[in-house]
Amino acid sequence: VNKSTLPGAADSLPRAAGSTGNGPGVALLCAGGAMPLIVAEEARSRGQELFLIGIEGLASKGISAFQHEWIRLGQLGRFLDLVKGRGIGHVAVVGALARPHLMDLRLDIGAIRRLPAVIRVMGGGGDDALLRRLIDLVESREGLAIVGVQDIAPGLVIGKGALGRHAPDGRHLSEAQLGRELIAALSPFDSGQAVVIMDGRAVAIEGVEGTDAMLERVAALRASGRLRAKGRRGVLVKAPKTGQDMRIDMPVIGPETLRLAACAGLSGVAVQAGGVLVAGLAATRAAADSGKLFVQGI
Amino acid sequence: VNKSTLPGAADSLPRAAGSTGNGPGVALLCAGGAMPLIVAEEARSRGQELFLIGIEGLASKGISAFQHEWIRLGQLGRFLDLVKGRGIGHVAVVGALARPHLMDLRLDIGAIRRLPAVIRVMGGGGDDALLRRLIDLVESREGLAIVGVQDIAPGLVIGKGALGRHAPDGRHLSEAQLGRELIAALSPFDSGQAVVIMDGRAVAIEGVEGTDAMLERVAALRASGRLRAKGRRGVLVKAPKTGQDMRIDMPVIGPETLRLAACAGLSGVAVQAGGVLVAGLAATRAAADSGKLFVQGI
Repeated sequence: VNKSTLPGAADSLPRAAGSTGNGPGVALLCAGGAMPLIVAEEARSRGQELFLIGIEGLASKGISAFQHEWIRLGQLGRFLDLVKGRGIGHVAVVGALARPHLMDLRLDIGAIRRLPAVIRVMGGGGDDALLRRLIDLVESREGLAIVGVQDIAPGLVIGKGALGRHAPDGRHLSEAQLGRELIAALSPFDSGQAVVIMDGRAVAIEGVEGTDAMLERVAALRASGRLRAKGRRGVLVKAPKTGQDMRIDMPVIGPETLRLAACAGLSGVAVQAGGVLVAGLAATRAAADSGKLFVQGI
Repeated sequence: VNKSTLPGAADSLPRAAGSTGNGPGVALLCAGGAMPLIVAEEARSRGQELFLIGIEGLASKGISAFQHEWIRLGQLGRFLDLVKGRGIGHVAVVGALARPHLMDLRLDIGAIRRLPAVIRVMGGGGDDALLRRLIDLVESREGLAIVGVQDIAPGLVIGKGALGRHAPDGRHLSEAQLGRELIAALSPFDSGQAVVIMDGRAVAIEGVEGTDAMLERVAALRASGRLRAKGRRGVLVKAPKTGQDMRIDMPVIGPETLRLAACAGLSGVAVQAGGVLVAGLAATRAAADSGKLFVQGI
């Protein structure tokens, strides 16, 4: 997607202030966690017109502060009607979404009409494989364009350099590089996007449990003496998988990541510049500074 | 090491029964866990002469059923005196050994004499890097040969095919293959030797926490609904790293591995044939059968 063609984007048209009356430019499909609201607020502050569609049971009630509707998982027909009925051509997907079972979905008539495609989407493979097939379905068969968070809220993408007061030393930067190489080596297996490197080796690798649980594991391994590193050491490295579609499932760090990294006794967090989102820039920077951790885009 | 030249080996000489009086052929340096005694018993049953050296605080008191002595971590001088004083030229290292800190070691005079080499051994990198450097030190500077468990207790090495009553299906075999590819891809990072593949993706990857903790994690992810797989599914895959020195740190499975794999709802365990040890063949087979799990050497 060429950003300059994005209707309603801050650096194109129509802005909220100078709206042509064509309705919001981008539909934001909101899943779980804090990110949908953080993204919506950041996009609104840039003048981006948004229509939020919350997934029941997942999305925060806070979306009611925006133009919004609710859908249940499986209501593909209602989702498409809501978007197309408003003349919206661009959709972003934000938030945590555990892979559902096809049998748990309450498919609506629009989903049942598209059942062969839905079943193909729900096939095997990891979360990325599922989301990629969903995007293919929506883009190729429904004429909608999927855009990424970086298109509607570019201020949430971490750039190169230090985010807060602290900076990595040469050893931290080598460990960050090792972590990036490990994440790249794991990419074909559609697994995690995070690893903890300490004393030159990978001590924890993220699977389905997620980054927070992995950091709690490192804290427990140190508390029990199973990991005998002393003092502040080790780097959490987060990066998208090689070849990842950056419109979906971009890695995220936030204040809670920093809090858990401090509990795990790490020295800091290194992320791929341009490839990782921040769940609130000011709050994340404050958590890094107060935890004496660096956050470095590399 | 050419097995046929191993003094005291069951398929060479001297056996215990027909000993030439030259003393035991192999010194077994015993660290933590059950493996040292399992290996010692298996080797003795084959007529292999052994001298056990237990690391205090780590090795089981059960080593007293064999010719043995105790050392503390750091007593490199005493270790070399014990081995060389008996005319033993071959050493095997068996059992769990958390990487110690140099400052925690109570170095004896023999270790202090070799201090520059000891400090080099204790340098950075993973457990493998440390053990490889220790082997280099002992082999190149002290004239001892390091042998593997497979040399003194080959009956503990899992071969090709099914260990117990149950067998994998085609899907399990593809997941096993995926797991082996993942472990190979991780090899340069000196991390774990185990992964759980479920529904075609890596749901858990072993770091410093070890295989048992990783299996407990998978059980918790399923119990909490975070991993929504239903019924028996998923394969624990264990394999040595690509290029791993098979005389040290060979991966091990045992009855406890099978018990935890059953708790995690897995279908079975796939191991690289010839590359993984079993902590008691009969007990492991019984645990697999009673847990309705396959154990397959591939």
